Amino acid sequence: MNRRNFLRTTALGAAIAVTPISFSAFGKDTATKATTPGGRMRLTFEPYELKLKHVFNLARNKRTSTPGVQVRIDLDGITGYGEASMPPYLGENVESVSSFLSRVDLGQFADPFRVKDIHEYLESIAPNNRAAKASVDIALHDLLGKIMGQPWHKIWGLNPEKAPNTSYTISWNDDAEELGREIAECKPFKIIKVKMGVGHDKELVEAFRKVYPDKAICVDANQGWNDKEKALEMCNWLAERGCVFVEQPMPKEKLDETAWVRERSPLPIIADEFLQRLPDVRRAAGAYDGINIKLMKSTGLHEAHQMAELARALGMKVMLGCMTETSCAVTAAAQLSPMVDWADLDGNLLISNDIFDGIKVVDGKVTIPIDRPGIGVVPV
Amino acid sequence: MNRRNFLRTTALGAAIAVTPISFSAFGKDTATKATTPGGRMRLTFEPYELKLKHVFNLARNKRTSTPGVQVRIDLDGITGYGEASMPPYLGENVESVSSFLSRVDLGQFADPFRVKDIHEYLESIAPNNRAAKASVDIALHDLLGKIMGQPWHKIWGLNPEKAPNTSYTISWNDDAEELGREIAECKPFKIIKVKMGVGHDKELVEAFRKVYPDKAICVDANQGWNDKEKALEMCNWLAERGCVFVEQPMPKEKLDETAWVRERSPLPIIADEFLQRLPDVRRAAGAYDGINIKLMKSTGLHEAHQMAELARALGMKVMLGCMTETSCAVTAAAQLSPMVDWADLDGNLLISNDIFDGIKVVDGKVTIPIDRPGIGVVPV
Repeated sequence: MNRRNFLRTTALGAAIAVTPISFSAFGKDTATKATTPGGRMRLTFEPYELKLKHVFNLARNKRTSTPGVQVRIDLDGITGYGEASMPPYLGENVESVSSFLSRVDLGQFADPFRVKDIHEYLESIAPNNRAAKASVDIALHDLLGKIMGQPWHKIWGLNPEKAPNTSYTISWNDDAEELGREIAECKPFKIIKVKMGVGHDKELVEAFRKVYPDKAICVDANQGWNDKEKALEMCNWLAERGCVFVEQPMPKEKLDETAWVRERSPLPIIADEFLQRLPDVRRAAGAYDGINIKLMKSTGLHEAHQMAELARALGMKVMLGCMTETSCAVTAAAQLSPMVDWADLDGNLLISNDIFDGIKVVDGKVTIPIDRPGIGVVPV
Repeated sequence: MNRRNFLRTTALGAAIAVTPISFSAFGKDTATKATTPGGRMRLTFEPYELKLKHVFNLARNKRTSTPGVQVRIDLDGITGYGEASMPPYLGENVESVSSFLSRVDLGQFADPFRVKDIHEYLESIAPNNRAAKASVDIALHDLLGKIMGQPWHKIWGLNPEKAPNTSYTISWNDDAEELGREIAECKPFKIIKVKMGVGHDKELVEAFRKVYPDKAICVDANQGWNDKEKALEMCNWLAERGCVFVEQPMPKEKLDETAWVRERSPLPIIADEFLQRLPDVRRAAGAYDGINIKLMKSTGLHEAHQMAELARALGMKVMLGCMTETSCAVTAAAQLSPMVDWADLDGNLLISNDIFDGIKVVDGKVTIPIDRPGIGVVPV
């Protein structure tokens, strides 16, 4: 089965009927009896390499593509879409994700709504494999939202109009022409995320400021500043240049030094590499002002929502990020965006071979497709 | 309109059609487009006094009935049911709840799914009135669950089979015959909640143990033990008599003394009167092992769910309680029960004039109606 057929065909080979229905007819029926699918969930998956528009220069690696796996869960004629994205520094790859997914038997669950049980089961298969788990969770949420006829931001009680602006990411490029093109592409965005820690940090900000004297920036140092005095000096320098927050200034192991920087920094310090899952949020509270939640770290939407609620309850700032991903995983994350302070949901814009329609950036703002149930995507 | 008509008739006077539908027909339609009601929510309410089967002897008051208000939200032919119960010590009454509800205009919300916005709006009306807010929240959740065609335990991803046993409450009665009858009624339950702090604490446990040598008990001291040494002595005495935990041993103001008792007590110490809402959970963490969540304190299901998740994330025990309520509010709370360690959901069993069918206690266990959407009740 080729990729197009993988996405478009149901497990039984039948196309999904597109039949708009009136709310009244739907509502009166469902008000009387909860309906549960009679069949069993079927998980299928397929590798899909994400091609980057620009070479990525991060503090610790450089690449032109990101390995990914597309996932679907079929149940009774409804398809849930999910995705794993595996940037190499997270330790997962096509082989490890495929191996994990081959061991997942969702057919044992008579009820697709047992989300907590299903996550417990995924944990029992292997302790890590967070992107693989996320791909199952995203497809499951898409399926459940479609069964309920609602997108997840609604199911969580969120107002999509409260979604924040999303940042667009730029990084240093030795090729001045290429760098100029990257900077030019920032135009439609209200806030730009500047990747740092590779040795041209101030040059990059200055090149950007020549084109946009006033546009807000935030900075992701990707653990790139080893010295706490250097990190603090950068925070002060950036605060004078329209920066809103700094992500992961120091290596994640350097918790005490990070706390030292945080106490002195005029800018909020956000945890990224330091933090993966729910129990990490409390640990982060001592040294960081906020957290960056990403579905590929959190094992998907269920735990990401818990993390956002916990961080809020602990008085922390919340940022929502992504890897390079298709619009599938990015739109899934966008469902949570009305809960967060800052979004960095540009992963789909950084690839040249997207295969889903979903999240849009309208006037710099995260815009969730409000009339699509589940995670809000359709294959294109 | 009399009470029966209030519960049974829709806002437009039309009966809800009871038409079971197949999942397939439902699912394929909803998988393609999210459906949102076109009309506006309409809130109505009516006082309803809850008559107690037995006189309640608490540490601080004594009564034979509890004032209540029944609430409904109608939208496009679907009805959501809610309820406020106002035990006098919480400071609300029929007048204050009616006055609050008269000021609630849900018609301003085009989308009933804006749960967080609606709660913000309710907060803007008045800072307290927690039972009144809960009644709106419960009716809203009932409505939303019916629109989605699913009960809330499913929407939250919970497995109803994991619901705990529920305790049944007994309290001291000077009338020995009456006390004997209360104790006899404990038979079907696996765990009994003994109300204490009114001066016959040990006598009550001893009377109970004569009938049931082995049945588990838990104790609610209702702030009844003023002295920390006395409280600790009772904890030790109770630990030797099959007690599982002690709720609110000391006055809520005595936080340091409670922490002192907790450090030494062989039994977990649970916060009840100390704690009302989400921000109280973190405060409780320093002096209590767990929290007792009640919808009439938490302003309903939305914040109750957040409180349960937060307590779990902080490593605390979670108990779910209720006031004397009809099966409406008790069944709503039961939707959360698979998340908690202990449930005390007997409020509907303590009244003689219930008007809803919902939660059942089967072999001592909380049993949620799994095939009813929303909060899981129907008027009887």
